[in-house]
Amino acid sequence: MSSQLRLAVDVMGGDLGPRSVVPACVRFLNRFPQAELELFGPQIQLQALLDEQRQPQLHGRLHITSCEQVVTQSCNPIQALRHKRESSMARALQAVARGEVQAMVTSGNTGALLALSRSILGTIEGVRRPALGKSLPAEAGSCFLLDLGANIDCTAEDLLQFARMGIEAQWVHTGKRDLRVALLNIGAEAHKGTEEVRRAAELLEKDPAIHYAGFVEGHDIFTGVVDVVVCDGLMGNVAMKSAEGVIRLMGQKAFTIERKSPIKRFFGQLAIKLLRKWRTQVEPARYNGASFLGVKGNVIKSHGGASSEAFYRAMITAKECAEADLAARLGRAMAQVKA
Amino acid sequence: MSSQLRLAVDVMGGDLGPRSVVPACVRFLNRFPQAELELFGPQIQLQALLDEQRQPQLHGRLHITSCEQVVTQSCNPIQALRHKRESSMARALQAVARGEVQAMVTSGNTGALLALSRSILGTIEGVRRPALGKSLPAEAGSCFLLDLGANIDCTAEDLLQFARMGIEAQWVHTGKRDLRVALLNIGAEAHKGTEEVRRAAELLEKDPAIHYAGFVEGHDIFTGVVDVVVCDGLMGNVAMKSAEGVIRLMGQKAFTIERKSPIKRFFGQLAIKLLRKWRTQVEPARYNGASFLGVKGNVIKSHGGASSEAFYRAMITAKECAEADLAARLGRAMAQVKA
Repeated sequence: MSSQLRLAVDVMGGDLGPRSVVPACVRFLNRFPQAELELFGPQIQLQALLDEQRQPQLHGRLHITSCEQVVTQSCNPIQALRHKRESSMARALQAVARGEVQAMVTSGNTGALLALSRSILGTIEGVRRPALGKSLPAEAGSCFLLDLGANIDCTAEDLLQFARMGIEAQWVHTGKRDLRVALLNIGAEAHKGTEEVRRAAELLEKDPAIHYAGFVEGHDIFTGVVDVVVCDGLMGNVAMKSAEGVIRLMGQKAFTIERKSPIKRFFGQLAIKLLRKWRTQVEPARYNGASFLGVKGNVIKSHGGASSEAFYRAMITAKECAEADLAARLGRAMAQVKA
Repeated sequence: MSSQLRLAVDVMGGDLGPRSVVPACVRFLNRFPQAELELFGPQIQLQALLDEQRQPQLHGRLHITSCEQVVTQSCNPIQALRHKRESSMARALQAVARGEVQAMVTSGNTGALLALSRSILGTIEGVRRPALGKSLPAEAGSCFLLDLGANIDCTAEDLLQFARMGIEAQWVHTGKRDLRVALLNIGAEAHKGTEEVRRAAELLEKDPAIHYAGFVEGHDIFTGVVDVVVCDGLMGNVAMKSAEGVIRLMGQKAFTIERKSPIKRFFGQLAIKLLRKWRTQVEPARYNGASFLGVKGNVIKSHGGASSEAFYRAMITAKECAEADLAARLGRAMAQVKA
């Protein structure tokens, strides 16, 4: 394998479409000279946006595969599987399947992405259910949370697999060993939670490959007391979205309160500048890019409302997954468990 | 009924115990001259803390019922029911049951509180499952979220009842009519979520007394697009705790980043001051005090790690519930539904 990094980018599907994706791609190529990108989307529109960027030196490293079909936000997984095989999202996944690229990034419809990924790439042998996971900011570093919404209800065995996959993924992002794994619950006491989560606690406790740290609550995701937090897709989705919501609320409050005296406004402006900087430490944009773990290929989901900055961050996540070949690592890890 | 406001306060159980509760009580009595408080806890310790506060003018409005038994954080609901009938928490609930006070406030063990409340006060006729709910900060005002952890799995019928109770509670806190109600889910599309949540959507849609606004995601709790958000106790608990966690993380980041030049430190300090102010707009302390809805009495749960400021806020919540007699309103609302 050459040291060349090749990523597929689905430029359609996010709320802002190619307008936020194309500048992120240009920035990525300028930052990483060994990278090449394969863009999937409408040729004419893409070419016009690229021309606007005036970066002729990148031409040889930026390829366009034209596709006019788009997966909309309202498309459900079944419709995607039946009618969206020629979409920019499906074509980008096909490039992963054929080994032409090491990872793909999209900000498109999550449900369609999960369904198309499973269908086009296939599931890693031994994986019961692929899961969506993401590294979130914590007081001490970061914490990998999964599942973020791919699986609505999960058995204890599913949660055990999520733990194993989460460990591999968080290793790729942090390089840390002996990662502490916890189960998300509504209390730290052993008698709390559903039967499945209590059964999962027993399975994790018994697994010699897992450093199990017990139950944690929602706030512990952000303290850094553990490195991987495992839960079903409902809880994970709610945890991540609620955190995003309250961060946004805090920004909004900051921008509306200080309107009093000129002096207060002056210091208010300074404070807002600092606040913006602090926010970037924790805000979703900086921690953008969820990995779909358990399919035979590296698939990165960017936030649907991703700005150019956020999409760029998702591309960095894709680069990390591609360079460590996370999907192959997961394949080996799951084979070891079976053996 | 006289205009007198009488609240019962369980002074034991929070992480800080009577040390945070007693100053909150003194502040409350000074702020509301028509109020009287009945404190439940160890007489000698309480009297010493009250003497420290040097507020002899409050003596006639501050009564102590001595109880030495305490419900610890590790006590499970069954142990509480069997062995904690003489605890400060149980005695405070008995005062509500006898009509000696209009509401009780505690920062003690949630599981024990829910079990003891059900047992001592009884459930309102027609209520299948009481639920814990709380008003949370939103861009436009506030949003009432329930259930926060009293019920792990809920049927569609439970969620419908939560919606009805949430409307009454949010009315008490805001005075707003025609409140918009949503179901918490992992996406706004009708095909998403568990079967129960989709069935609940049909029930809410059909109910002429409910202004149903569809599914919302975690971040929508904080935007103010709706007034009441309904979910099962797992999701609600995770949503609230995750939001609290990320707010705390943001504060922590703010206090560690600015250590560079003296000028940066100076402005950093100013910004931190403003940030603190902004945080109080959204932080848990200001929005402290969850109501246990569906039992025959007004029961307010304060955060276990509540500071004196936060406990004071929970007392304000109790005052609002007591003055509107939320429990009686819920009784009437549920009777109407039956008729």
